[in-house]
Amino acid sequence: MLIVQKYGGTSVASPERISAVADRICATKAGGHDVVVVVSAMGKTTDELIALASAVNPDPPAREMDMLLTAGERISMALTAMAIHRRGVEAVSFTGSQAGILTDAAHGAAKITEIRGTRVRESLAEGKVVIVAGFQGVDPESREITTLGRGGSDATAVALAAALGADACEIFTDVDGVFTADPRIVADARKLDEVSFEEMLELSASGAGVLMSRSVEFGRRFNIPIHVRSSFNDNPGTWVKETTMEQAVISGIAHDTSEAKLTIRGVPDTPGIAARLFEPMASADINVDMIVQNTSTDGTTDISFTVPKSTLAEARDIAAEIAEAMEARSVDVDSAIGKVSLVGAGMKSHPGVAAGVFRALADASINIGMISTSTIRISCVVAEADTERAVQVLHERFDPPNISQEVGA
Amino acid sequence: MLIVQKYGGTSVASPERISAVADRICATKAGGHDVVVVVSAMGKTTDELIALASAVNPDPPAREMDMLLTAGERISMALTAMAIHRRGVEAVSFTGSQAGILTDAAHGAAKITEIRGTRVRESLAEGKVVIVAGFQGVDPESREITTLGRGGSDATAVALAAALGADACEIFTDVDGVFTADPRIVADARKLDEVSFEEMLELSASGAGVLMSRSVEFGRRFNIPIHVRSSFNDNPGTWVKETTMEQAVISGIAHDTSEAKLTIRGVPDTPGIAARLFEPMASADINVDMIVQNTSTDGTTDISFTVPKSTLAEARDIAAEIAEAMEARSVDVDSAIGKVSLVGAGMKSHPGVAAGVFRALADASINIGMISTSTIRISCVVAEADTERAVQVLHERFDPPNISQEVGA
Repeated sequence: MLIVQKYGGTSVASPERISAVADRICATKAGGHDVVVVVSAMGKTTDELIALASAVNPDPPAREMDMLLTAGERISMALTAMAIHRRGVEAVSFTGSQAGILTDAAHGAAKITEIRGTRVRESLAEGKVVIVAGFQGVDPESREITTLGRGGSDATAVALAAALGADACEIFTDVDGVFTADPRIVADARKLDEVSFEEMLELSASGAGVLMSRSVEFGRRFNIPIHVRSSFNDNPGTWVKETTMEQAVISGIAHDTSEAKLTIRGVPDTPGIAARLFEPMASADINVDMIVQNTSTDGTTDISFTVPKSTLAEARDIAAEIAEAMEARSVDVDSAIGKVSLVGAGMKSHPGVAAGVFRALADASINIGMISTSTIRISCVVAEADTERAVQVLHERFDPPNISQEVGA
Repeated sequence: MLIVQKYGGTSVASPERISAVADRICATKAGGHDVVVVVSAMGKTTDELIALASAVNPDPPAREMDMLLTAGERISMALTAMAIHRRGVEAVSFTGSQAGILTDAAHGAAKITEIRGTRVRESLAEGKVVIVAGFQGVDPESREITTLGRGGSDATAVALAAALGADACEIFTDVDGVFTADPRIVADARKLDEVSFEEMLELSASGAGVLMSRSVEFGRRFNIPIHVRSSFNDNPGTWVKETTMEQAVISGIAHDTSEAKLTIRGVPDTPGIAARLFEPMASADINVDMIVQNTSTDGTTDISFTVPKSTLAEARDIAAEIAEAMEARSVDVDSAIGKVSLVGAGMKSHPGVAAGVFRALADASINIGMISTSTIRISCVVAEADTERAVQVLHERFDPPNISQEVGA
């Protein structure tokens, strides 16, 4: 079998941790497998490099920022290769560029366009463990080094697994897997043994930080099973895969307090209004998440939407400009919100779930500000102060993961 | 003019120092010059990376060590480019590989074989300041990243200056230039305004740490004037160049306490003895410096030689083996020695210098253990405890730099 393993920053934070990771890699190799390892930068290295950059230039050019940050994985990959060598196993490390990870030209947020992997395959054929720097690549046009942005190392691992035709991709992190809810909030949250790509995509998009949507998307597209597990123990984690199992009504409950809500009141209810508002948001790279438009009264309507707090100021400026142009009444901002999302593939055939959510929140006197649903997700915006309690009451009410047979619809 | 500037580790040790360096670079650029900058790793970065490597593997593979260490200059070069950008000047950083610095395959001690510099020239043509990582290159055969070993960043700078046809190469360091002796030992040591390549080569080889022989050698071969100066002030430093000036009898006095002396006693005085001894030393990469063979008495002789203390144990083992094979009497080791060297191009036409050295040391009751000379250098090995005093009495006696006319021969 060919296995791709990815170790995050906390898993390689110190020489001791790197040695533990090397033990695990060598054990996998000794099990008769070919192993390709993707590493993140050690612990807080990336933050430290960003701090150095800020100290010399508060607004550093993105091209140089990428040159700087890619030093982080270079350090961890070389140290990991050395630690493996010490255990008598041949290993060789490659930068993203050397591994043939080609990207577009978007410094700081590049997308992988192709993985050549020639040197990776050559080294595997020589029986070596191959270490690849996560989070980075090269734009073949300009020959410039790029970084992939948030979740980039996971994306490197899953994309590499796809390109090499790996049998599985193991994502080692500092938690035991994907949980039914955040264990810091819900005491009896349980680890999921398995979750479908589809559900994981919704969980990731709804705030479950363990795996970024982009790597789940790669896994789904190329059907690479992803095993999310801890590098601090040997427990099996959560398999993210194309599932054939009977699916749970609710797999998990995710929450997210990183967004803010904008409401434009008194918008004339005419065709094209939404396009006029959201096209400029898209042009400004503002990631609009939930959008709710109320039923029209008196020929006007209210439009609410959420954006990451980090882009709130810019979004408000754009909204204010458009509101003025369309003679809307006002733009209100609420940054003290939380989004709570139930995700479950079994929901498709269980129409009672939404009603159950609203009842549970009502019984707990939690007011719902916005609602949005997909076929396998129900998200409610509540007050930020109510967020944790909302997760708790919903977890108690739905008790995930419950297999469909066990709960009547 | 095209000027290559090189900044060492202490010159870029912190964001504040990097900002000061950026000011200097921008001032040079504003003076109407094209500027290429070579940087070392920040302060103690290289030492820290070596410590991390030792922690995961006491004997790390050289290939991975080079991957690791090259992260150091990557960080400093990106930060330097950012700091220049902040001052409104366009700058771009390149790794050794990107700058086309080709080397042989000797990881950790690679030699520069060619400098392509295509991207450097392109960026200069676009009016940009170019920052190049010192100390590193790429072996074009294997596509592996290499490091140049000790003094590698200086070598990068001078070789780059030669390849680009630069008008001068400025080596910025933490001292004001090349001194007539170590100012920590000789209170009235003076900075030399100018010294010839030939003399600088002898000074470097004799322990003057400010510039490594290999970069002086590059400067001499391609006739690139090298300006060694401080990055902490604006004082002019020392020009190392093909000098046309009247040359001083003595330019400077260097000393070196990093070597140890081995003596093989009672060696049969037959042809081929020296070869039998020093060939295995060369094979073991032991850098033998001074070699003295006494006149034969009773058909046997004593051979003394010095090696770096770091290779003493290995050298002793080799010497002991050969001594036994050739039935020599004993191998004695003395690691408490110091070497004091007078260097001066004017010495060629002043035969009295050697005698003056011996007289000055005798008057100070300093015993001479070994003597070796070149046309422009006289080196004496003395007891380690006498080394500083030997430098002082010789500096006082010869009072460098004295122009030839001023001292009678």
